[in-house]
Amino acid sequence: MSAKLIKGTEIGEQILEEITGEVAEIKKKHGVVPGLVTILVGENPASMSYVTLKIKTAHRVGFKEVQDSQPADISEKDLLALIEKYNHDDSIHGILVQLPLPKHIDEKKVLNAIDPDKDVDGFHPVNVGRLMIGGNEVKFPPCTPAGIQELIVRSGVETRGAEVVVVGRSNIVGKPIANMMLQKGKGADATVTIVHTQTRNMAEHCKRADVLIVAAGVPGLVKPEWIKPGACVIDVGVNRVGEKPSKNDPNKMVALLKGDVDFEAASEIAGFITPVPGGVGPMTITMLMRNTLRSLKFKLGIK
Amino acid sequence: MSAKLIKGTEIGEQILEEITGEVAEIKKKHGVVPGLVTILVGENPASMSYVTLKIKTAHRVGFKEVQDSQPADISEKDLLALIEKYNHDDSIHGILVQLPLPKHIDEKKVLNAIDPDKDVDGFHPVNVGRLMIGGNEVKFPPCTPAGIQELIVRSGVETRGAEVVVVGRSNIVGKPIANMMLQKGKGADATVTIVHTQTRNMAEHCKRADVLIVAAGVPGLVKPEWIKPGACVIDVGVNRVGEKPSKNDPNKMVALLKGDVDFEAASEIAGFITPVPGGVGPMTITMLMRNTLRSLKFKLGIK
Repeated sequence: MSAKLIKGTEIGEQILEEITGEVAEIKKKHGVVPGLVTILVGENPASMSYVTLKIKTAHRVGFKEVQDSQPADISEKDLLALIEKYNHDDSIHGILVQLPLPKHIDEKKVLNAIDPDKDVDGFHPVNVGRLMIGGNEVKFPPCTPAGIQELIVRSGVETRGAEVVVVGRSNIVGKPIANMMLQKGKGADATVTIVHTQTRNMAEHCKRADVLIVAAGVPGLVKPEWIKPGACVIDVGVNRVGEKPSKNDPNKMVALLKGDVDFEAASEIAGFITPVPGGVGPMTITMLMRNTLRSLKFKLGIK
Repeated sequence: MSAKLIKGTEIGEQILEEITGEVAEIKKKHGVVPGLVTILVGENPASMSYVTLKIKTAHRVGFKEVQDSQPADISEKDLLALIEKYNHDDSIHGILVQLPLPKHIDEKKVLNAIDPDKDVDGFHPVNVGRLMIGGNEVKFPPCTPAGIQELIVRSGVETRGAEVVVVGRSNIVGKPIANMMLQKGKGADATVTIVHTQTRNMAEHCKRADVLIVAAGVPGLVKPEWIKPGACVIDVGVNRVGEKPSKNDPNKMVALLKGDVDFEAASEIAGFITPVPGGVGPMTITMLMRNTLRSLKFKLGIK
């Protein structure tokens, strides 16, 4: 392959190191550390493993971390009361409710109950609005798009005046990253196009892209001939396409993951490319940590 | 000229008629009418004339309208208390603070104090966020972008799968209209590109546009050769480029306004085009009325 690999695992690690340093410094100066609570309802195995990883990472960077596990039959009212408790808890700077929630609970209502100033996931309408307004208004950029922007910046890819094409218009990735890339400032200032299921000529748009961000959830959607030679390709897709033997135990099968881009062929054409897994994925939790640190810094008035 | 003229004056008039009908019906059924308060601080002549026009229009469609004029030296605290009063006034469904405010008052703080459910201008971060999230989440689309979308829909221009290019990335027009056009649904579902001051090849992008929305504030920025034959051109620019004798009184001079598009030449190429003035302009107040009506309808649970 000729493309430079953008290793989210390594870049994420580097950022976690930076966060650890900042946390130690703030602790020394102000006697306080960022506090993150993760609220888990029920025992969905995937959710449990995500929460465990978040808590482990929070612990590692020196945060106060609280895992608050609630039974699957908790009432919506009790869950809202729990959030209200953490909204008023001065030692907590980030509140994370692990999704999905059981069906008897209105997810939107629960997420909107989180104090926007502790909404480190960045999904509350106030934070979505702040993101679109841009500049100093932005408080918590949502974690996956923030991770994408960080990967681009730290790989030294120039975005100012660049053609950025975003494939997919989800609220979690496509729309926020498009809005972030078109703002003024570092790692942005790009000419942005969003393409999606209704787009007539997706290939032509992708061919124009200096930076191609693909978040469609369709394995192998982007063909190598859609990629401009030398482009930076960010593949957000994580599609389970089958199983493969585990590296650690060849008798055990694990999920075989593929991105939205035909990686092997694309990496012969692109200038930069993220692998799947190990590209965008690891950045999400890293950015969650950064948002939690940001929350404390806003509170302390540290820039 | 060969382009069909999109007359905002006429379309706006038609929508005001529709609103008048709906207001009368709601009054009959529910015994209530939409209430709009415009808060004017000081005596800026341009602001005064805008407010007068808004109040006149509100009166015409059958709203309860309140004009609350405050002296230029009102304290920020008193202005915030005034807003709080209207936030709790059940007869008021829309609160409008006319900008600009005097320098001793923090505009952002004042605008953010308006109850998002009465923020008929749609500039509160919560409403900006709801707009980007899309679908049923949207409460008050900001007035100028909403007017643009309405002009496109009522002119019978198909947007689904169309190439929409937005020139300009302001928070008042460019960003919101781009976000609206890329959502799912009627008058949207388009492939959207935003170009701006940092864009390398603005002409090439414009040439691709089936719908070209120009909100740059630069008179004559868009050249006729940038326009795709048959395209729909929406010119949001209102630039004061000089003076001309008044139609009513040839001895009096009035502002000579020009759009961001070279209208005469462009109208030979475009399929549809908005004039300046009389295109997008008149739609803004119309959409303010519609948002105020929407506010009451949300409250009454009417779809």
